[in-house]
Amino acid sequence: MPNTPDDQQRIDAIRFLAVDAVQKANSGHPGLPLGAAAMAYTLWTRHLKFNAAHSDWFDRDRFVLSAGHGSMLLYALLYLTGYALTLDDLEHFRQLGSKTPGHPELHHTPGVEVTTGPLGQGFGNAVGLAIAEAQLAATYNRAQTIVDHYTYCIASDGDLMEGVSNEASSLAGHLRLGKLIVLYDDNKVSLAAGTDVTFTEDVCARYQALQWHVQEVTGDSGNDVAAIDAAITAAKGDPRPSFIAVRTVLGFGSPKAGTFGAHGEPLGADNVKKTKETLGWPTEPPFYVPDDVLAWWRAAGKRGASREDEWHRTYEQWKNANPVLAAQLQRIRDERLPERLSWPTFDAQNGSVATREAGGTVMNAIASDMPELVGGSADLDPSTKTYLKGCGDFGPDDYAGRNVHYGVREHAMGAITNGLSVHSGIVPFTATFFNFLDYMKPAVRLAAINKSKAIFVFTHDSVFLGEDGPTHQPIEQLASLRSMPNMTTIRPADALETLEAWKFALAHGGPTALVLSRQKVPFLGARDAAVARGAYVLHDPQERPELVLIATGSEVSLALDAAKLLAGRGTPARVVSMPSMELFVQQDEAYRESVLPVALRARVSVEAASTFGWARFVGERGLAIGIDHFGTSAPAAAIAQAFDFTPEAVAQKAAGLLTGALA
Amino acid sequence: MPNTPDDQQRIDAIRFLAVDAVQKANSGHPGLPLGAAAMAYTLWTRHLKFNAAHSDWFDRDRFVLSAGHGSMLLYALLYLTGYALTLDDLEHFRQLGSKTPGHPELHHTPGVEVTTGPLGQGFGNAVGLAIAEAQLAATYNRAQTIVDHYTYCIASDGDLMEGVSNEASSLAGHLRLGKLIVLYDDNKVSLAAGTDVTFTEDVCARYQALQWHVQEVTGDSGNDVAAIDAAITAAKGDPRPSFIAVRTVLGFGSPKAGTFGAHGEPLGADNVKKTKETLGWPTEPPFYVPDDVLAWWRAAGKRGASREDEWHRTYEQWKNANPVLAAQLQRIRDERLPERLSWPTFDAQNGSVATREAGGTVMNAIASDMPELVGGSADLDPSTKTYLKGCGDFGPDDYAGRNVHYGVREHAMGAITNGLSVHSGIVPFTATFFNFLDYMKPAVRLAAINKSKAIFVFTHDSVFLGEDGPTHQPIEQLASLRSMPNMTTIRPADALETLEAWKFALAHGGPTALVLSRQKVPFLGARDAAVARGAYVLHDPQERPELVLIATGSEVSLALDAAKLLAGRGTPARVVSMPSMELFVQQDEAYRESVLPVALRARVSVEAASTFGWARFVGERGLAIGIDHFGTSAPAAAIAQAFDFTPEAVAQKAAGLLTGALA
Repeated sequence: MPNTPDDQQRIDAIRFLAVDAVQKANSGHPGLPLGAAAMAYTLWTRHLKFNAAHSDWFDRDRFVLSAGHGSMLLYALLYLTGYALTLDDLEHFRQLGSKTPGHPELHHTPGVEVTTGPLGQGFGNAVGLAIAEAQLAATYNRAQTIVDHYTYCIASDGDLMEGVSNEASSLAGHLRLGKLIVLYDDNKVSLAAGTDVTFTEDVCARYQALQWHVQEVTGDSGNDVAAIDAAITAAKGDPRPSFIAVRTVLGFGSPKAGTFGAHGEPLGADNVKKTKETLGWPTEPPFYVPDDVLAWWRAAGKRGASREDEWHRTYEQWKNANPVLAAQLQRIRDERLPERLSWPTFDAQNGSVATREAGGTVMNAIASDMPELVGGSADLDPSTKTYLKGCGDFGPDDYAGRNVHYGVREHAMGAITNGLSVHSGIVPFTATFFNFLDYMKPAVRLAAINKSKAIFVFTHDSVFLGEDGPTHQPIEQLASLRSMPNMTTIRPADALETLEAWKFALAHGGPTALVLSRQKVPFLGARDAAVARGAYVLHDPQERPELVLIATGSEVSLALDAAKLLAGRGTPARVVSMPSMELFVQQDEAYRESVLPVALRARVSVEAASTFGWARFVGERGLAIGIDHFGTSAPAAAIAQAFDFTPEAVAQKAAGLLTGALA
Repeated sequence: MPNTPDDQQRIDAIRFLAVDAVQKANSGHPGLPLGAAAMAYTLWTRHLKFNAAHSDWFDRDRFVLSAGHGSMLLYALLYLTGYALTLDDLEHFRQLGSKTPGHPELHHTPGVEVTTGPLGQGFGNAVGLAIAEAQLAATYNRAQTIVDHYTYCIASDGDLMEGVSNEASSLAGHLRLGKLIVLYDDNKVSLAAGTDVTFTEDVCARYQALQWHVQEVTGDSGNDVAAIDAAITAAKGDPRPSFIAVRTVLGFGSPKAGTFGAHGEPLGADNVKKTKETLGWPTEPPFYVPDDVLAWWRAAGKRGASREDEWHRTYEQWKNANPVLAAQLQRIRDERLPERLSWPTFDAQNGSVATREAGGTVMNAIASDMPELVGGSADLDPSTKTYLKGCGDFGPDDYAGRNVHYGVREHAMGAITNGLSVHSGIVPFTATFFNFLDYMKPAVRLAAINKSKAIFVFTHDSVFLGEDGPTHQPIEQLASLRSMPNMTTIRPADALETLEAWKFALAHGGPTALVLSRQKVPFLGARDAAVARGAYVLHDPQERPELVLIATGSEVSLALDAAKLLAGRGTPARVVSMPSMELFVQQDEAYRESVLPVALRARVSVEAASTFGWARFVGERGLAIGIDHFGTSAPAAAIAQAFDFTPEAVAQKAAGLLTGALA
């Protein structure tokens, strides 16, 4: 069915705002907005539940532009529907300080749900948002339904080539996330070439194999509003997640249409003119939207207001009927912790405990106090100890379940976690072996960019995991995390530091990585374990110390043992536990000086990882004891001997430094 | 068809070597060897072309155990067939210094083709080996066929859940790699649970969608040798890559069969005994193999010898008929560079050139000299400038093509590159934006563990890529690479350093990462750009310098400009270009002292990236100028202003340090 002229004008308004903004910036991606404008129009004006005036309405439908390079499509929609984005903002697309950066950024532009751009991530985020919706709906809906929204996603060829989207899709199909609807901008072109040179699989058949409801819209170059509308309606009616492949033309209407030249660079002034002529749009002025078209769009942006009002009325009824539950949800939405948390206590009676074990104890102790704590592991919870006992398994049989079985899909776990985190209502956690941080690094980085509250648990944190060998033993992963902006990395030394690390993570607004041991570590004594200050003096000799041993995690007890040996040999040493470099460098100078006095020049760090980054703390005359090579397969004790991670070897090296330092 | 008793004994010999080794080590994974022994037996004794005496026979079939945790399956096969692996080696499974580490390691155990263990990687490696075979066959076969082998892979549920395997499989199907045959150990159990809790997709249908030839072997718990044999035969006959799903039982024969308890821990002495009783194997002694069974296996291990002899005869004929080609292949297999390489020259006349552009010039200049240079980008070659002009596109239309179109599949690109690298005959390269290192990090790490010769080109190496914004701007990626053992990271400052970086990479035996700019950088003058020494003095003032500016990449010219400003203000400064930290720290102390004299205490580093790791070079009194936050979307020049990466800002900060340092 051909579109009405009105439809066409409204669609073209999106197109030319995008094209003009890219042209003005002389940078950006015009191809996607030209090709996908009709599907976006159909979705946003006929299906998406939103109120542009209140971008934080709790039960709004979520929209994720996974193909974040097409950001001008989204910015055009936000401007047209009346979000807090002006024409001036569009005119400053991709300029310093503007609200319209190259890729959509959370907290930066009203109406942007999550930061997208690295391909495949947004798809995973959308799965996370859909999991959040299902989990919250099952948890909170009673006689009144207060959580009931769809999650929509526009994904590109690039998104679907990335492995992370397949991981997320396999899980979404398994979980029967029926309120997740993905529109595939099937334009057969990527940045460097047509997809015929590399991507000829049957995408729809793959999605069928992944247990999705699959539809194809093939007519009219992706412009058939009625067909797209019907497909979205059918998708909503199916209990499975839905995949709608819309056959589009990249750069539709432009002289470069259907070529990779239309993907990632401005069309050029001439081609902009020709495109406007082809589609019957006034060639001047740029950023032109006819008044009646803008008025229509603005009205569309307000259409959700009555639904929002109705939702608020329902919410009040629900709140009155369920005051305790309502207070709980309000607390969680306000990002406040419960007033009381049943923290466990650890003392010497616990004996030696692996920090992964201590972490599991903490999580399970507070789990019932914190229903917002939802997460899981990548097929490793018997090892990571992160299973929340008695909290159910999330899935079609129990959407209120709080343990998500991610399968061996670390990357999707990370991307889904970002979706869970930005939804509101959930504080997500993940768990895997520390070395497999690498598999999920792109998602962890986006958590840091988003400043998402999310807790990334990494266990088996060093070569001392033992026999699995170098492919499983982290070396450079601590440096990888510590050098990442906005990320707080904590490697606790014993059960008490693990408890303090969890306290920090839950109180902290951004992402936290907890790096935990596989092996048992001794309890280091009752004390003020100042984890939130990053480092503290754990042991000071009676005499004035000549050197300081700085250690993290499982190497703190090793440093204490080395200090004992040194003391016996007349060399008093301070021992500093430094669970978090990042937190320590944020302390004031007085505190830092009290822990690591500049005058105390002989400093030794002890950490079973790359020494990269330690010079900052041990100084030029200091010594960083670490492992600057890959690990080896052997029992942990044999590795400690082979790699010189014994009290004797550490004491000798430290003493050697001192001799040199004082010489 | 039931197996013969002989078949059964030979299969059980694999099983119990594995079970006993895991039990003795009290660590490891008995479940996979028990379940997959029959398919391994069938493959190794009826199909695999190998000669245990010569594990380096060029045209052997390649076998990859992607599910590397089942390493004892492979070690049992290697021992039984007579590779250089003794019973004593098996008895020292997972012990320090043994030839039988927890996961298979290249260069460590004769017969292991590639290091596997992190799930999904081996699958990608197998695709790489199959690409190598196809590329070399098309390049070298003439009247005689000297390259003609299959690549086999055993993959687990975990391998198939990981996104990297889907990426690699999508590409393999597209490329019609008919000599790639994957056996799927379909045991329905992973580490933490049955696959029913997370992995219920129709895997076979997915592989059909990915354009593979798909077969299922469902009978007799995966023990039906005749059925497996027939499936492999059919697979060889099909022009597509083949996927054979063999329905097995994890931990077959043991009391834990079919449960996740059989996956990753020893069965326990009692269960070992019961398993042996169930399968009719003598319970004592451990590591028992009946003499006749061992003799049969050893004969099987020699069966390929006559085929190898025949191959050598063919090779001689080919060599005589094609002496130039033969000399070329011999050179490449010996890992020698051509005696003459047509290096380009760069001088001031080239003007300002982006180092990505210079890199492309170098690659294209030497491409015809080095037919072993094969690789491509993840859908970015117009931007990474890594396309080898006139060298063809690898694919069904031209398997001799040297440009591989990886699609938006960075992770598979990395894993495939590891396969290309270990095959012999190819020096692979990859290319993508530096930030997307994160997507391929697990594979890059395995290249480092393998010490593979591979060149990882990363362009768009800093915030100065501009408008794409923080999701595309690397910050912590340099720290991530520099902290990785065995990896050499080079960030050249101009075209000449880029040339020297390529010279180093091609001469170097291990992996190299080349980190290149999007933006133009000035030519820094004719000089001995000592890239292979990691750092060198680029500019020294006539007067004795009071400070040194150390910079890398595009910030070197910035440092020079700052030094000019400082000189005009009476503060002479040395400028050191440090393209590679790793190479610099390997130099002797005299050289390091000549570049960065200890007496010269005021040191400033300038690098548009995380400052993490720079304290080692600037010292405690020094200053690391960097970017310890995420980037922003804006034109590069605006970012430079906003982030204080201007000559004036650098000069001011350096002068400030000097004042402080001398105070």
